[in-house]
Amino acid sequence: MSIFNKFSQWQFSKDRLEFFSDAVFAIVVTLLVLELKVPRLPHDCTTQEIINSLRDIVPKFYSWVISFFFVMLIWLHHHQIFLMTTKSDYGMMWINIILLFFISFLPFPTALMGEYPHQPLNVTIWGVTVCLTTLVLNWLYYYNTHNYLSDTYDRNSVKKNVRLSLFAVPLIYLVAALLAWVSVYISYIIYLIVPFLYILPLDKEKKADSGTHH
Amino acid sequence: MSIFNKFSQWQFSKDRLEFFSDAVFAIVVTLLVLELKVPRLPHDCTTQEIINSLRDIVPKFYSWVISFFFVMLIWLHHHQIFLMTTKSDYGMMWINIILLFFISFLPFPTALMGEYPHQPLNVTIWGVTVCLTTLVLNWLYYYNTHNYLSDTYDRNSVKKNVRLSLFAVPLIYLVAALLAWVSVYISYIIYLIVPFLYILPLDKEKKADSGTHH
Amino acid sequence: MSIFNKFSQWQFSKDRLEFFSDAVFAIVVTLLVLELKVPRLPHDCTTQEIINSLRDIVPKFYSWVISFFFVMLIWLHHHQIFLMTTKSDYGMMWINIILLFFISFLPFPTALMGEYPHQPLNVTIWGVTVCLTTLVLNWLYYYNTHNYLSDTYDRNSVKKNVRLSLFAVPLIYLVAALLAWVSVYISYIIYLIVPFLYILPLDKEKKADSGTHH
Amino acid sequence: MSIFNKFSQWQFSKDRLEFFSDAVFAIVVTLLVLELKVPRLPHDCTTQEIINSLRDIVPKFYSWVISFFFVMLIWLHHHQIFLMTTKSDYGMMWINIILLFFISFLPFPTALMGEYPHQPLNVTIWGVTVCLTTLVLNWLYYYNTHNYLSDTYDRNSVKKNVRLSLFAVPLIYLVAALLAWVSVYISYIIYLIVPFLYILPLDKEKKADSGTHH
Repeated sequence: MSIFNKFSQWQFSKDRLEFFSDAVFAIVVTLLVLELKVPRLPHDCTTQEIINSLRDIVPKFYSWVISFFFVMLIWLHHHQIFLMTTKSDYGMMWINIILLFFISFLPFPTALMGEYPHQPLNVTIWGVTVCLTTLVLNWLYYYNTHNYLSDTYDRNSVKKNVRLSLFAVPLIYLVAALLAWVSVYISYIIYLIVPFLYILPLDKEKKADSGTHH
Repeated sequence: MSIFNKFSQWQFSKDRLEFFSDAVFAIVVTLLVLELKVPRLPHDCTTQEIINSLRDIVPKFYSWVISFFFVMLIWLHHHQIFLMTTKSDYGMMWINIILLFFISFLPFPTALMGEYPHQPLNVTIWGVTVCLTTLVLNWLYYYNTHNYLSDTYDRNSVKKNVRLSLFAVPLIYLVAALLAWVSVYISYIIYLIVPFLYILPLDKEKKADSGTHH
Repeated sequence: MSIFNKFSQWQFSKDRLEFFSDAVFAIVVTLLVLELKVPRLPHDCTTQEIINSLRDIVPKFYSWVISFFFVMLIWLHHHQIFLMTTKSDYGMMWINIILLFFISFLPFPTALMGEYPHQPLNVTIWGVTVCLTTLVLNWLYYYNTHNYLSDTYDRNSVKKNVRLSLFAVPLIYLVAALLAWVSVYISYIIYLIVPFLYILPLDKEKKADSGTHH
Repeated sequence: MSIFNKFSQWQFSKDRLEFFSDAVFAIVVTLLVLELKVPRLPHDCTTQEIINSLRDIVPKFYSWVISFFFVMLIWLHHHQIFLMTTKSDYGMMWINIILLFFISFLPFPTALMGEYPHQPLNVTIWGVTVCLTTLVLNWLYYYNTHNYLSDTYDRNSVKKNVRLSLFAVPLIYLVAALLAWVSVYISYIIYLIVPFLYILPLDKEKKADSGTHH
């Protein structure tokens, strides 16, 4: 991390970094729902007309759901990573800012995909955005565990785990993003499933660690 | 909570969970007001025209009020539950995420009900959303007090209280949601009253507890 | 505060109350700017056309400024009040919720006044909203200092100060709100000045206190 | 800071000031993306039409990027300044409020510049806004280090640094803002580069400090 070296004498508060990131995660996750716009109908519309117009926004609802759970899982991992980390520095600040950059961008591809759900381009844009987000998250994970790993964790098992997980999840998202050009439905299914698989990697290294210490 | 068992070795910060939830509650409660859109009138409109157009958005105002107090009461209970809880784990994280999922969805049914206040379907959708929200809140209450109840509380009275309250409030909301098909006004009245009744359950068990310890 | 008595055995975290309020203040103060909508012009518009359309939104800008400083001053006083307070209870929670209710409503009268700045009705609605907000703030000030005043403050001088300040500021706002029917410009001037006068009351009692203790 | 003198006996919590500012920074940085509106096209539009309409919003995307990094750098410096500061007072509160005033205003010039990117006036408005923001940040830096500098910092090197940096960055932004009338592209390039240069000043004084103490 040579480019950050000359700033290494700056002090940073890990608490304030975590707090700021949490605020951004919370705002993004809540803003996402604003894209679920109430359909514009005549005020004396029938129940059937409302049902039909709600059916029209099902893709928006689906986009919201996958983005919501994606942000929550980034938050869960962010949380985990910082519990494993003893202190913060300038490099960590910047990697975190890049992570927040992608997270705060997410409402746009989510809205685009919800508005034109059958366009493979939009599905790909969402996938590439989350692919890059997970890539930066992994960078943060590598940076923090490499430099400031808490003593309660086993360095070797963390290292092995980092090597395995670093490209797996971003790669899956990239493949899913490209498969949209075959069928957008394949992408949609993978987008919903991956978050629930992605929670595993960090856990494995915790097990190894607990096996080492007890 | 067997499905969460294998993650039980993860560490979690109760503080960060509370903080993150508070941020989501605060954002949702503040975003709700954005649905109170300023009426579009000619710029040389008369005072009477403004009064008329404000009268048109009374249903939006009413929707905002009941959603505001609903979120505040969920916040108050969330607060109480976590004061009774000694630590957090992976299962608690996920139940809390599901709670935030429903809370962050609330602006949509609120807007829908405010826009088409005479449609029973919209009134039902709002009712079902808050019914599910209180159900998840009760799940969180059960999970936390069952697994990590602070020693200053009496386990037996909490247990009895949980059994009584677990389905009462969600059931009232469900009934109110269905009554919208008889008359939306019945639902509106119940929606406003229930929050102010719902504050009671947790209190009873505190009394029992204070009777046990002093 | 008899209606709150039976809840007096609930525990509350003053920190979480302050945090939650701060989040609401921060969101409201930031959302206010969203009402400053970019004018819709043809994309090949001239600089002169942009200047003209910016001139049209000067009233919106003015509304934003007075609401911004109003919220900041409520925040400053909220901050002061809670530094004087040793603990929180159920009644305090509810008074604070009512304060947040009015604060989170503020974007609506701000937008209404900015959109139709010459309508006395809108100017009055803004004034009445902030009048009620300061009234609730004074209620909170009375409740906290009466029940949980920190030992570092002199009870007598606080009490005297409360009696003096409790109705002065809300009354000024009410008068200003009504004067809009004579001329909206009088109201606008008072609205901008009052916040900068309103910062005084709490200060006086601090001086008395420092005179008592040193 | 004579006008603040009579308030100097107020107490203030540095934590709550930092927290509140962080919340405002986080909200502003996240709201900025809402200006990236999804293009309105017919629902059976082609991929090519989407690409074209995305190309149209490239200026909005660029405006978002420079505003995002500008806010993050203000946050980084704010963070640094408060780590150098031992306590807070009434004057600091108000300088900070003025800083938040400009930060919370930023979404408007960002939207204006993104909407009409070829209008020098809009590019100038953005530049003047950030010029004033950095000026207030420097005021805060001067005020805090002059009055409440932490003992771990060398007062002389901080003082020298303040004198050097106080007008350099705001001046660069002002010049860039005016150069928009020659060519908006020159301004756009400077706007993107400056944040990455601006991170240096505080660092130099830390070096001097570490040279003094070790």
